[in-house]
Amino acid sequence: MSDSLQNRLFEQLDALVLIDSHSHINPNSPASTSLADLLGYHYYTELAHSSGMPRLSIEEAGISPREKVGRLFEHLGKIDNTVQWSWFEELSRELFGFEGDRIDQSNWESLYELADAKMNQENWDSDVLKKSNVAQVFLTNDFDDTLEGFDTQVYIPCLRTDDLVFHLSQPKVQARLQSSSGLQLSTLATLKQALDVLFVRFKKRGARACAISLPPWFSPKAYTDDCRTAQIALDDVMRSGLDASESNKKVISEWVFWKIAELADAHRLPFDLMIGVNRRVYPNGVYQGQDLYDSRVSLIQYAELFNAFPNLPFPISVLASVTNQELVDYAWIFPNVLTHGHWWYSNTPNYIRHDLRGRLEAIPRNKQLGYYSDAYKLEFILPKFRMYKRILAGVLAADFCIERCWSEERAVALGKQILRGNVEQVFSM
Amino acid sequence: MSDSLQNRLFEQLDALVLIDSHSHINPNSPASTSLADLLGYHYYTELAHSSGMPRLSIEEAGISPREKVGRLFEHLGKIDNTVQWSWFEELSRELFGFEGDRIDQSNWESLYELADAKMNQENWDSDVLKKSNVAQVFLTNDFDDTLEGFDTQVYIPCLRTDDLVFHLSQPKVQARLQSSSGLQLSTLATLKQALDVLFVRFKKRGARACAISLPPWFSPKAYTDDCRTAQIALDDVMRSGLDASESNKKVISEWVFWKIAELADAHRLPFDLMIGVNRRVYPNGVYQGQDLYDSRVSLIQYAELFNAFPNLPFPISVLASVTNQELVDYAWIFPNVLTHGHWWYSNTPNYIRHDLRGRLEAIPRNKQLGYYSDAYKLEFILPKFRMYKRILAGVLAADFCIERCWSEERAVALGKQILRGNVEQVFSM
Amino acid sequence: MSDSLQNRLFEQLDALVLIDSHSHINPNSPASTSLADLLGYHYYTELAHSSGMPRLSIEEAGISPREKVGRLFEHLGKIDNTVQWSWFEELSRELFGFEGDRIDQSNWESLYELADAKMNQENWDSDVLKKSNVAQVFLTNDFDDTLEGFDTQVYIPCLRTDDLVFHLSQPKVQARLQSSSGLQLSTLATLKQALDVLFVRFKKRGARACAISLPPWFSPKAYTDDCRTAQIALDDVMRSGLDASESNKKVISEWVFWKIAELADAHRLPFDLMIGVNRRVYPNGVYQGQDLYDSRVSLIQYAELFNAFPNLPFPISVLASVTNQELVDYAWIFPNVLTHGHWWYSNTPNYIRHDLRGRLEAIPRNKQLGYYSDAYKLEFILPKFRMYKRILAGVLAADFCIERCWSEERAVALGKQILRGNVEQVFSM
Repeated sequence: MSDSLQNRLFEQLDALVLIDSHSHINPNSPASTSLADLLGYHYYTELAHSSGMPRLSIEEAGISPREKVGRLFEHLGKIDNTVQWSWFEELSRELFGFEGDRIDQSNWESLYELADAKMNQENWDSDVLKKSNVAQVFLTNDFDDTLEGFDTQVYIPCLRTDDLVFHLSQPKVQARLQSSSGLQLSTLATLKQALDVLFVRFKKRGARACAISLPPWFSPKAYTDDCRTAQIALDDVMRSGLDASESNKKVISEWVFWKIAELADAHRLPFDLMIGVNRRVYPNGVYQGQDLYDSRVSLIQYAELFNAFPNLPFPISVLASVTNQELVDYAWIFPNVLTHGHWWYSNTPNYIRHDLRGRLEAIPRNKQLGYYSDAYKLEFILPKFRMYKRILAGVLAADFCIERCWSEERAVALGKQILRGNVEQVFSM
Repeated sequence: MSDSLQNRLFEQLDALVLIDSHSHINPNSPASTSLADLLGYHYYTELAHSSGMPRLSIEEAGISPREKVGRLFEHLGKIDNTVQWSWFEELSRELFGFEGDRIDQSNWESLYELADAKMNQENWDSDVLKKSNVAQVFLTNDFDDTLEGFDTQVYIPCLRTDDLVFHLSQPKVQARLQSSSGLQLSTLATLKQALDVLFVRFKKRGARACAISLPPWFSPKAYTDDCRTAQIALDDVMRSGLDASESNKKVISEWVFWKIAELADAHRLPFDLMIGVNRRVYPNGVYQGQDLYDSRVSLIQYAELFNAFPNLPFPISVLASVTNQELVDYAWIFPNVLTHGHWWYSNTPNYIRHDLRGRLEAIPRNKQLGYYSDAYKLEFILPKFRMYKRILAGVLAADFCIERCWSEERAVALGKQILRGNVEQVFSM
Repeated sequence: MSDSLQNRLFEQLDALVLIDSHSHINPNSPASTSLADLLGYHYYTELAHSSGMPRLSIEEAGISPREKVGRLFEHLGKIDNTVQWSWFEELSRELFGFEGDRIDQSNWESLYELADAKMNQENWDSDVLKKSNVAQVFLTNDFDDTLEGFDTQVYIPCLRTDDLVFHLSQPKVQARLQSSSGLQLSTLATLKQALDVLFVRFKKRGARACAISLPPWFSPKAYTDDCRTAQIALDDVMRSGLDASESNKKVISEWVFWKIAELADAHRLPFDLMIGVNRRVYPNGVYQGQDLYDSRVSLIQYAELFNAFPNLPFPISVLASVTNQELVDYAWIFPNVLTHGHWWYSNTPNYIRHDLRGRLEAIPRNKQLGYYSDAYKLEFILPKFRMYKRILAGVLAADFCIERCWSEERAVALGKQILRGNVEQVFSM
């Protein structure tokens, strides 16, 4: 009975047309062109590698998509227990019409053909969006992206600021910023102006957010526009590039971060914080399969930031489930702190369930942004959201309909607000 | 079947007469005088504020109770998903006879009248106690409280020591201590004597515990009575007040904490430690809605303390669920470490359930103090304890009756020991 | 229905013949000789002590086994809620034929006789192994163990390296190493040679792993064989023993640890890391009941190690559940990181369940070593593994059969791989 309750709730949530508030979709090539695009997603390559497949076998230059997929299937049986594998199975069923029980070495070639046929159809990308019930997808754009050549009503620009904050000592990043802003970065004043040019361009092209991923050791710090220490740091970074002192690199990171927060506030763009990742912990890992973390991070590192920008919404994702209770409680107290999805290493059912229950029972309902796909290819939006919606339906059934005697209608309304309503509200859609 | 098992266990636990081992009840005004008292509880004001209500609209001076409640109801719909809201709904049903499905902007005024009528009845406070099945309630008394004018058989004094430990550099606190002890605080010896005067007074008036809340960075350190460094620190703190050096303030905090532990030991008063809160993280928040925390705290910071006072019971509450496993394990090993309730940010079902299961399966049954209300007004004792008892019944049903084939009688006996028996034992009731 | 599904899965998992990949069994006296051996297990003595039993009453010299058991039973009623107690009840039923409802002060003496009769039977140890469905048991051998006098086909040697890494400043440990290797430890070169002698001996006698338990503050660091700083540290440690400087002790710990990793790699012995324990946090506790921890530890402390030895398998146990998500994610990314059992303070159902679900859904199936007993006496293998297998069956039923529509056969195959297949594979059985 409770199972069928959960199913009824799921069906209603699944009927909702979604806005995906964070992805890495390339709007000029949003869908996959072969199974190799799908199985090239880092989840599959890194898990296959972790299970014993040599990196070089995965990343050998010049192999055909079919060869790559064939090689991967020699190892994918070792990861068929993972939820990531279940995403691939579900999208193969729902999008390609695969009908078997399992996908493995014995039958992958027929799936390859099935997928090929679909992907070569006209309008495959809009088909996928339609089948996935998705109306709009947020992007993650480089700061010097021209944002041209795609429909910004469907693919919503979002200004990714990692390079600006953490890699401004790279001459290449400096050149990109100078070129895209048309400004020489000699002074803090011109640097802030250059940043402003980006915000103006992104806003004009319909951007709805700016975003950054942050290492666990980072702690935002207030700086005046013309702080002398920061000007010295900028001089060093512009002159010496990667050879600038570590302390100057850190100062300029902090200064740029704070200025971006000020500009986000001025331009009314919510600032997505994705807190907790250490890059290149395993440098010999496959592409995008090298990052891990130190779970010893606290949102108290961000208290000064949250206090300084009371009118700037911070949709926050945390990497480890242990940080989720802090996130719940900071969102419960700070009006400008919102919960945003279930990110990366916390995006598996065990952690989603625990983290979601903590959120639903203690944070105002208008401050919870339920889920985003984080996908690189459109095909993954459907199975990832489905995973989330099943868990959400289960929690609504158990904790609200049964435990608190809510009607199904009331529970579904809460679910819909979290899945979509708040996305519209927070990002002014 | 398992649902009806859980219900049967709940009924039996709910029939028990309780002792509430920690609250902030004012014994001279224990119950509410209007709905504004209830909805003025920081959970509602801080959640309403977090959901978008301006602090000044909540805290405007001079508005009537009815006006305040009316303003809050413009926002409370945004927090109706929270468990805190369910407390208000449950007490409205159980204590005021509210019968609707929801309480919202459309019907709050009739509830206001219902509540008003009840609250104006003679003996409303003892009615609430009776309906809540509560025999005795622990208080949290300022150290200079005279403890006069109320029935200390029902309202049990408890010496709150935060001001003494953390705010002795405030001239006002020094004056209060000098005045209430009748001693000049010039030397460590007189300071200890003054503290002893407080313990003697509290003991005489029936106190059963002393208590303190502690920030995550605090780590108790042993001091001799006449430590020279501490005398220098005291001199600075008495002379310079808030302008004393930070290191001297820290030394005097540590010295006073250690002496209080010695006095609690000598006077046989269990020492409640409430570990983990950072005060005023959000200074622009509503009254009592400004505190948060850094979850990076460890009970190893208290190892020296636990070893130094083997005969002093330490009932311990932790703020974040991540600390609960350490609490389980320190209570499993140290005879003087006890678990005490589910505190504040961990007092929601998702965290209670996980933390409770960890405790029930690994800590001796005589060392678990199940729950306290932490309430400011009597009306909240009923719904908060009910929430806990439902979860307790669920865990007893699943983990003991079903998983370990315990009889219902045996499971209920365990529940009753945790709910009440241990409170009597530990606090010598 | 789901209950009977879980039971069916359990029966199939329970029929599997096991290899126990980590224990503290003494192969010359693997089974118990009286109930005092069983109840002398630190879980019972430390929990009885924590519940109020004086240490001296437990550890009084010269008392008879029966007297010791009788004294313990005056307190064991206070721990009958713990899962550790359920292990004792289950083994009493399964191995001794106890048939009552509870074991307590009223009936322990009859159990004592029952157990005595069984334990005095010829071949009690092999009977226990047979009833427990266990084929092979890994040991934890001191580095100077001769490994003679027992069947190394059943009792698999494992080189315990704690003394070498953390206690080489003890003259006794130096003497043991010199004597067992036949080498004088004057230079780093001879020290490494001495370590190599141990590896050669252990390999010759069939060792399948080396192992170490590590405090939370430890962070492995690469050293060359002839690092000058390390030679100075060795000189100090050899000359001054326990009076060597703390920094030199630390350097020599790090150097030895790194050389052991190199030797494990060269000799192809998986290196079990058991991460997170602080020794003697409660020095007045009972024997083996003094250790606790600081849960603020991160696997990032081991990133350099994992990167340096890509071909050395690291089966990893963590002490606190909060570290388990990091373990899941490091095992998901690093090919040489494996999950190994549920250790000590995380070896209770609440934490096993949460940790296991996190692992099963995100780590390649060939990298999960499900469980080991950690037992000191053979009798505990049965109830500890049963506890795990019940939880495993529950998770397979809920998360795979029901949630992901797996067949029972497929779920059981996953369970068997985790319970046994991977042990064979990883440890080259």
